[in-house]
Amino acid sequence: MPPSPVPLFFAADHQIQLSDYLPLPRTTFLQENTAEPPPPHPSTQLPHVTLTYATSLDSQISLQPGLQTVLSGPETKAMTHFLRSQHDAILVGRGTAEADNPGLNSRFSNDGQYAVGLDRQPRPFVLDPRKKLDPSRTPKLLENAAAGIGRAPWWIISDSEDVDQTIWTNVVRAGPYVGSESGIDWEILLNNLAATGVRSIMIEGGATVINDLLKAKNQKWVSSVIVTIAPTYLGDGGVVVSPPRSNATQNEARLTQVRWFPLGQDVVMAGKIH
Amino acid sequence: MPPSPVPLFFAADHQIQLSDYLPLPRTTFLQENTAEPPPPHPSTQLPHVTLTYATSLDSQISLQPGLQTVLSGPETKAMTHFLRSQHDAILVGRGTAEADNPGLNSRFSNDGQYAVGLDRQPRPFVLDPRKKLDPSRTPKLLENAAAGIGRAPWWIISDSEDVDQTIWTNVVRAGPYVGSESGIDWEILLNNLAATGVRSIMIEGGATVINDLLKAKNQKWVSSVIVTIAPTYLGDGGVVVSPPRSNATQNEARLTQVRWFPLGQDVVMAGKIH
Repeated sequence: MPPSPVPLFFAADHQIQLSDYLPLPRTTFLQENTAEPPPPHPSTQLPHVTLTYATSLDSQISLQPGLQTVLSGPETKAMTHFLRSQHDAILVGRGTAEADNPGLNSRFSNDGQYAVGLDRQPRPFVLDPRKKLDPSRTPKLLENAAAGIGRAPWWIISDSEDVDQTIWTNVVRAGPYVGSESGIDWEILLNNLAATGVRSIMIEGGATVINDLLKAKNQKWVSSVIVTIAPTYLGDGGVVVSPPRSNATQNEARLTQVRWFPLGQDVVMAGKIH
Repeated sequence: MPPSPVPLFFAADHQIQLSDYLPLPRTTFLQENTAEPPPPHPSTQLPHVTLTYATSLDSQISLQPGLQTVLSGPETKAMTHFLRSQHDAILVGRGTAEADNPGLNSRFSNDGQYAVGLDRQPRPFVLDPRKKLDPSRTPKLLENAAAGIGRAPWWIISDSEDVDQTIWTNVVRAGPYVGSESGIDWEILLNNLAATGVRSIMIEGGATVINDLLKAKNQKWVSSVIVTIAPTYLGDGGVVVSPPRSNATQNEARLTQVRWFPLGQDVVMAGKIH
């Protein structure tokens, strides 16, 4: 039984407006759910990276670490499911996976049906350099795969971790672990993802991953930034999106080619960052 | 010699779109620059309070305390000057006044002229409960008044401070000083402002004042919230707009009647908060 369809909140003209920021045409060669990894892709081109998240007016994505917080309305939620259908892969950090038990599949529909077939479903990747994930806290990923409404999740761990395939079959290496301050080496990870056939990836959170990619030194890996802002203030003390500042008296990031799309109660900003 | 005119960035249809959030019709009975305070107004109705500020994507209004930071583009700057022309008064906190040496007058023009006459200029008020302002750091307010392109500033101090009229002639009482945590009693201050003839006031900052008014207990004094968001990340460590949270697991504020206006590179959110 498919889930309830998403209402017609996100129409064709919205899709056209956003297309400048998306990896079109979407590649469709990712293998279906299987224990066999796809053969490495010969191209050295790195994936299109779309950094996307929903936030409050005070730039917080949740009230507390580990507490899933409703921010965006049905219109922008539909947009997120459309975006997912346009990417080969989705990446979230371990903390977000454990806190939200997310499906990370696309439940986008514009015709009242659960219209996104498995060929348009993104592959979920969980970034977990130190291999601390407790997969019992993220059952939905495997349930969706078993039900045929999502792809099986892959685990991203650093080179120094042992591969333990008791629960999730496939692993991608993040390169050497370089400590929480420096984050991971995105060039190595994106190359390794490209080698598995990923041509486009949507990075959805949490704040640790987002803030790492917004740093001046990492912005070059980000193809597009798509942010939903909801008209609410969570108030001081939540989980904040704000990258560490490289230079005390300069902006850390300025976006270009910016467009704003009011959508329901929220606004969506799409832009480039490098 | 009037300043250079603001270009035609903010057109008549923008003004109409924003009019739902403004104190129309604007009252025009404020006295011109004079050492004599106007007679108390008989009405007990409190002023229309428009809370407005410009911020980054990471909800910061400046890179450091005391460091004026350019955020909004010319279109939204023009909007701010339009808003000022629609209010009897402007209020900023002492820190902002000393850091920015602001003019706090309206330099709005839609016809290539410096079109806002003194009758449409708002009265600047500086909120300074403990009377710590160093007026030598805010010369522009008196210069504008002397040049006839702005009204003379008034000083808001708590009841316990001595009136010292060596520099600024007029004083409004903020009520008893209740400590930095609790902020001021806005009901007393707004009543005192109404008694001087203020029917509408635009509160522009800084973060201490904004965060105080966004608290759940103070939202009832705010008639409209108008926020400009610029597509940039200042990065962690700046001056943040995010009210203290009254309840750890609940949003501090949710806006209603929200509209978003893309304007140049920025977006403007207008809404109600109570």
